[in-house]
Amino acid sequence: MRALPDLSLYLVTDSRLIGQKNLLSVVEPALKGGVKVVQFREKSMEAKEIFDVAMELRALTSKYNVPLIINDRLDIAQAVDADGVHLGQLDLPVEKVRKILGANKLIGFTVHNEAQAKAANQMDVDYVVAAPVFRTNTKLDTRGLLGFDGLRSILKVSKKPVIAAGGISLKNIAEVVDMDVDGVVVVNPIMTSDDPQLSAEKFVNMLTPMKI
Amino acid sequence: MRALPDLSLYLVTDSRLIGQKNLLSVVEPALKGGVKVVQFREKSMEAKEIFDVAMELRALTSKYNVPLIINDRLDIAQAVDADGVHLGQLDLPVEKVRKILGANKLIGFTVHNEAQAKAANQMDVDYVVAAPVFRTNTKLDTRGLLGFDGLRSILKVSKKPVIAAGGISLKNIAEVVDMDVDGVVVVNPIMTSDDPQLSAEKFVNMLTPMKI
Repeated sequence: MRALPDLSLYLVTDSRLIGQKNLLSVVEPALKGGVKVVQFREKSMEAKEIFDVAMELRALTSKYNVPLIINDRLDIAQAVDADGVHLGQLDLPVEKVRKILGANKLIGFTVHNEAQAKAANQMDVDYVVAAPVFRTNTKLDTRGLLGFDGLRSILKVSKKPVIAAGGISLKNIAEVVDMDVDGVVVVNPIMTSDDPQLSAEKFVNMLTPMKI
Repeated sequence: MRALPDLSLYLVTDSRLIGQKNLLSVVEPALKGGVKVVQFREKSMEAKEIFDVAMELRALTSKYNVPLIINDRLDIAQAVDADGVHLGQLDLPVEKVRKILGANKLIGFTVHNEAQAKAANQMDVDYVVAAPVFRTNTKLDTRGLLGFDGLRSILKVSKKPVIAAGGISLKNIAEVVDMDVDGVVVVNPIMTSDDPQLSAEKFVNMLTPMKI
């Protein structure tokens, strides 16, 4: 049986946000600052390039003893021996992915509403990501925003750990943490920071109540 | 040990060419007409949709006892139990894919020149696709055209079965077949045909010398 890692501060990468910077030059300080999970999300590169970057992230996250999750591409996850995959509603079916990946890997699953959260209760997924809670400019294909009410309704029905995602910032994180989520996805505030380590540390400080 | 199937008439699908038609409404008559391999190539759909269509193609090709190959997405190939994958120079590394897929599945590999064909000789791939031989409007990212000379140089050095691809039509196929290729990839002449079965039959007739 797989153990669930600390999901409290969950970084999702987005290479569109870092200009000419190397992805690792942002992720490594973020890890030093206390990021607990790294999800590599990359839609635009060719598979070989995604694989090459994922291999680098695999080495880096292993060094910091942090799980590496690959968005969507189960094949990339297998090829780099990632700790798991993250699936959206439009990705491969969970049951197929579980069968291929085996019982020892993590599967995260995005839910956009209460009905999807209920459906996820019946699936062999390790956690759900409730998204998008707030407005964000990294996901252009967002459905309706959950807001606090939508997030609350998902937390109420979910039997899985729930990570809140979408527009989480230092300004709104206190209220999200108060809602008893299992973690928060952070993208912009860390990916676009001039000091990703300091940014991650600020989030860690806000998350401390979750661990009490 | 896997047996190499008849590769002589190798259909690569392209949903951009069929407008509002259902892909199966083109592929099934093509199979009736004698297509020997179906490669499902789809870059624009979400993974779930690719999976759904691939499942339909899996059932259809099994009915006609024809191998189904998935372009690029090893994970889709595994999820639908396809007969193999096709990799380009910018896809996942062959050795990783072979390790994940196992020895019983087919791996095809695209080569654009003699050097890549020589490199492929050392890889655990079942066949190479030499491309693009002629001009085509389905592949916008083509490198230099091989022409007859380039195809000949690949055939000369390759120790793998060679399938010619790119702009193969009824007008030029006779000369390609004369060069002793192991098969031809056909896209446009079948995908855009009003009568895919008849189109496939015409190609089969031109390929008959390959079987003597």
